[in-house]
Amino acid sequence: MTSNAKSLKIGVLGCGNVGAALVQLVAAQRAVVEQRTGLDLQVTRVAVRNISAPREVTLDDGVLTRDARDVVTDPDIDIVVEAIGGIEPARELILEALRHGKPVVTANKELLANVGAELYEAADQAGLDLLFEAAVAGGIPIMRALRESLHGEPVRRVLGIINGTTNFILTKMTDAVAEGGDADYSSALSEAQRLGFAERDPTADVEGFDAGAKAAIIATVAFGAKVVAGDVYHEGISNVTAAEIAIAHRLGYVVKLLAIIERDSSNGDISVRVHPAMVPINHPLASVRDSFNAVFVEGDFVDSLMFYGRGAGGAPTASAVFGDVVDAAIKLRSGTHGSLGALGQATIKPIDETSAEYLLGLDVADEPGVLHSVTGVFAAHGVSIRVAEQEGNGPDARLVFITHTAREADVQATVRELRGLEEVRNVGGLLRVVGD
Amino acid sequence: MTSNAKSLKIGVLGCGNVGAALVQLVAAQRAVVEQRTGLDLQVTRVAVRNISAPREVTLDDGVLTRDARDVVTDPDIDIVVEAIGGIEPARELILEALRHGKPVVTANKELLANVGAELYEAADQAGLDLLFEAAVAGGIPIMRALRESLHGEPVRRVLGIINGTTNFILTKMTDAVAEGGDADYSSALSEAQRLGFAERDPTADVEGFDAGAKAAIIATVAFGAKVVAGDVYHEGISNVTAAEIAIAHRLGYVVKLLAIIERDSSNGDISVRVHPAMVPINHPLASVRDSFNAVFVEGDFVDSLMFYGRGAGGAPTASAVFGDVVDAAIKLRSGTHGSLGALGQATIKPIDETSAEYLLGLDVADEPGVLHSVTGVFAAHGVSIRVAEQEGNGPDARLVFITHTAREADVQATVRELRGLEEVRNVGGLLRVVGD
Repeated sequence: MTSNAKSLKIGVLGCGNVGAALVQLVAAQRAVVEQRTGLDLQVTRVAVRNISAPREVTLDDGVLTRDARDVVTDPDIDIVVEAIGGIEPARELILEALRHGKPVVTANKELLANVGAELYEAADQAGLDLLFEAAVAGGIPIMRALRESLHGEPVRRVLGIINGTTNFILTKMTDAVAEGGDADYSSALSEAQRLGFAERDPTADVEGFDAGAKAAIIATVAFGAKVVAGDVYHEGISNVTAAEIAIAHRLGYVVKLLAIIERDSSNGDISVRVHPAMVPINHPLASVRDSFNAVFVEGDFVDSLMFYGRGAGGAPTASAVFGDVVDAAIKLRSGTHGSLGALGQATIKPIDETSAEYLLGLDVADEPGVLHSVTGVFAAHGVSIRVAEQEGNGPDARLVFITHTAREADVQATVRELRGLEEVRNVGGLLRVVGD
Repeated sequence: MTSNAKSLKIGVLGCGNVGAALVQLVAAQRAVVEQRTGLDLQVTRVAVRNISAPREVTLDDGVLTRDARDVVTDPDIDIVVEAIGGIEPARELILEALRHGKPVVTANKELLANVGAELYEAADQAGLDLLFEAAVAGGIPIMRALRESLHGEPVRRVLGIINGTTNFILTKMTDAVAEGGDADYSSALSEAQRLGFAERDPTADVEGFDAGAKAAIIATVAFGAKVVAGDVYHEGISNVTAAEIAIAHRLGYVVKLLAIIERDSSNGDISVRVHPAMVPINHPLASVRDSFNAVFVEGDFVDSLMFYGRGAGGAPTASAVFGDVVDAAIKLRSGTHGSLGALGQATIKPIDETSAEYLLGLDVADEPGVLHSVTGVFAAHGVSIRVAEQEGNGPDARLVFITHTAREADVQATVRELRGLEEVRNVGGLLRVVGD
């Protein structure tokens, strides 16, 4: 290292996959970053719970400590990376780091989706960076794009495939349907667990909690408003059936778990929801396969943008964290910092007031007049039908409908009334069509 | 506007599609940007060649001027946007603006691909921003991703579909091949011209000059080295035939005009080239259709990233320019600026030394021993064959080969020798396989 490089010391909280990959990346890129920026970056302290646990990286003597608080208050540490996850003690440690004049980089979606506003405000008041690229969609630089590149763009809607586990499972089911094989949810989940794409308890992923937390963060950044995880309506994929995927396939759609973040241009209300959706096969999101993530942004001027990449994994996440560290280091040297600006209060539009096209499948008795009774229920609730198809006949008859754009409340009322009809044996899961 | 907002005045050089869309966007987003950043941005001067020409925007009295030099030296102007294109007088005007303390935003790829290094250096010495997101891939924020998010990432290779005209033409040809219709280049070009996706003289697009200039800029930013348009090897699409697209289709590939920017990890040499390539159908770049652009980044830690969107058009380009303007305004207020850092000298690897898999189609006389003579030529040059197929027989026999990874020079020598063989009637265009 040349002697006139500015030396900055990084303290890392946590040394799991991400923390360990970060330590390696900082070491590997030290010379390149110094040559390009004049900054000599080094990880000098790493806080862990168990000092003697085996790890993938070798650290110099004295780098490891059990005392995270000691790292965030250490006068020798210039930048803190929080990679422990969860709300406490991460929140307290970040606030303490900011109080001690250290910019913070975090990959902690749970933290930001719940108490982000408090932290952004604390960082702003301290005049320091709080950067969190890796908290949403791992290695994909979507936060920077929304915070900086699209600062002046009237963003209308963001659609995201932001959970790799569910995208992997749905891809397996879709491939199996296309090949005529066994396409049920539980065997796809087992495969995902075997390959390490799903946790043993997959609830947070498959029921949409993980995607919901990320959607709240996207909404906050895209629209400059306080949106928290609890504001997000979410449905998971555990009820998606091979039959639904097959119908979608036949009609030219792919089933994806989508996060939808949009602003009503008439009143500024924000809708944030996560649910399975039918995406047209030609839409760029339809080709996002396996555990990859993608975020699709629609704006009045920019038209469509999509950002695609690895949404998880130690190395891609560490890449995003390190991008933030370099950015924070450059800003620290010049005495400036980024900011989300003043976050407004968000008015959240209830799911009942959102609109979409809907696919509905009904098992019915194939008797004269059934279609007439069923369509009468749609009409009574003002839900207009775009496609109606009958599959099979006799006792196995199945009606499939795609509606024109309709209000969620009206469709739910339609479903409730259809369930009460004598001729209707079963109303299948509702799939919303998104991306037309 | 509240009285404590910092007011910044923007001078725009040129009022074509991009300049006019920018004026509209700044006006439309003025309140939102002020609320989020505390900056009140206004376009107060616009330099044009012909004041009385009809335009899409209405400007206040006194905003239009014929004197661009007067705008870049005007003490009331805080930020200059150059949207006139070409090298001179754009270069001189930008240098003059920097000398007068004004950060500059430009969308001018020709300028940057030829004299960019001089301008980046002038901006750095002046301590001012020179931002150019819109110069490559229009509305797609790939420059910021490379400059900031991936600052610490060991980028290995960038693959780009960065010319909308050629992607539109190739998409039409590919669709026509799939549908069994008329797929020739000239009718696809005519359609592109009729729809406004190609210029009357399409040379700059279809022969790869435009993509080459953008590739030079990407190489400079991705690898921190001085690469100019003249360093870029380029072939266009005017010789791509329906037959080649059909063979590629049958073998599971899509033909795309790719810009390939890569660094040899062994010696740091940089290869920058633009040529038609066969992309595997499952690769994310294969689904980039019509006039859309996309940039695919491969890095050691981040794995794969793709950025997709509108590569041209007034509104998407203006969106990227405005993102830069807001960024420059924020940095101007805090007295800082971005920088590409010290650019190293690039050692450009000649095309002859690059490697790929190659597809070759030969029209041959179907006589005993032809395959033996032909494969002997491959072997003599050390080019190993992965797939060999014969189509037809008798006088219309055609041999199609895909090689294993081979050096360009060896493949070219093979082609030259094949052309000399009596049994070989014709050697078709060479298609390189990229993205496996």
